[in-house]
Amino acid sequence: MSAGKHKLLQPDPADVPKAVVSRLSLYLRELQRLSQHGKNTVSSSQLGRLLGFTDAQVRKDLACFGHFGQPGIGYRCDELVGVIRRILGTDRTWTVALLGVGNLGRALLGYKGFAAKGFQFVAAFDSDPRKADGVIDGVRVHPMDQLSELVHRQRIQLAMLSVPAAAAQSVAELAIAAGVVGIVNFAPVTLSLPEHVSLVGVDLATELEQIAFSVANRTNPR
Amino acid sequence: MSAGKHKLLQPDPADVPKAVVSRLSLYLRELQRLSQHGKNTVSSSQLGRLLGFTDAQVRKDLACFGHFGQPGIGYRCDELVGVIRRILGTDRTWTVALLGVGNLGRALLGYKGFAAKGFQFVAAFDSDPRKADGVIDGVRVHPMDQLSELVHRQRIQLAMLSVPAAAAQSVAELAIAAGVVGIVNFAPVTLSLPEHVSLVGVDLATELEQIAFSVANRTNPR
Repeated sequence: MSAGKHKLLQPDPADVPKAVVSRLSLYLRELQRLSQHGKNTVSSSQLGRLLGFTDAQVRKDLACFGHFGQPGIGYRCDELVGVIRRILGTDRTWTVALLGVGNLGRALLGYKGFAAKGFQFVAAFDSDPRKADGVIDGVRVHPMDQLSELVHRQRIQLAMLSVPAAAAQSVAELAIAAGVVGIVNFAPVTLSLPEHVSLVGVDLATELEQIAFSVANRTNPR
Repeated sequence: MSAGKHKLLQPDPADVPKAVVSRLSLYLRELQRLSQHGKNTVSSSQLGRLLGFTDAQVRKDLACFGHFGQPGIGYRCDELVGVIRRILGTDRTWTVALLGVGNLGRALLGYKGFAAKGFQFVAAFDSDPRKADGVIDGVRVHPMDQLSELVHRQRIQLAMLSVPAAAAQSVAELAIAAGVVGIVNFAPVTLSLPEHVSLVGVDLATELEQIAFSVANRTNPR
């Protein structure tokens, strides 16, 4: 991958706004799509237009991490894909545990987008013994009381938490004690976790509230 | 509800950063929890601490919409719940259609948090005729070709889109033509919709990428 040619700036990640990192994900998805459609280069204004951003926004976001693209040519799609994956840390494979195999857990296990981006489910866990020892989308479901041992033994790095709200804090603590360093939390509850653990919360009702605000006030969150 | 006492400022919604609206959802959830636990008042620093924000952040966010709280007392939880629901537009009931009844769609239909916040699923739709006429969590599943008629007749306002990526754009357009004005899109694709439609995209892989960035660079997205 020609991304190796580029020297990346390494800003203190604490100085990079969360919104910039979110937009990197969008740029990446769009660039991969363009690349698949045989497009070699893209300008900041084309990329911005596809996503509803200005060209200045695109250039400013990317400039946080280095100097990419060439005047009159734009960005080479493949190259920028490699660069963004390096920035995001998705140029490697991450091992992921799925905690809680309800409907949402099943949906997450079946979601095709994760593996393509380097996130590999290696084990699932559920407290319901009737679910244990099943296999869903190629991933074995284990009883929750094997969480500590298996996360440790398989060196699982990340977890997606889709247990009921009441169980979320204790299950997260078990996973962290066993070595997990990043959690995507789908349970509608605020977790209190050690500083060294990365946490993103996804509250599905919040997304609807954003839409309600936008419709009620006739603006658009895009 | 005593929220009626408060005069709300009505800033141009386009001037309210998306991040502020996101935090309103978090404040609301935390205030409702405090209220359920019998707490009458909360200070900006207590509220901030529970969510990992500074007290200045809390005060600044709320000040966009008016003057709430009293020195030495803080905010009355119930009152602020009412105020934030009015701001978000969740002091009323919204009718919602679920489009695409796969695992994720089932998870969304079963998600208890929506109804509590005023979002009511009134119909679900799927292109698979074997799923049509089933009832999931009290919501009837209809064939996709009845979408236009039923959305129009039942005056459905919002839609959650959990169809495969390849179908997302066309299904969204059908829903909009029938009167839907806000869409939460779970399909991993960027939709191109008319300006008057509110759109929030939820790409589950994006959440994992945020975590990867954070772990890889040893910072924390909180």
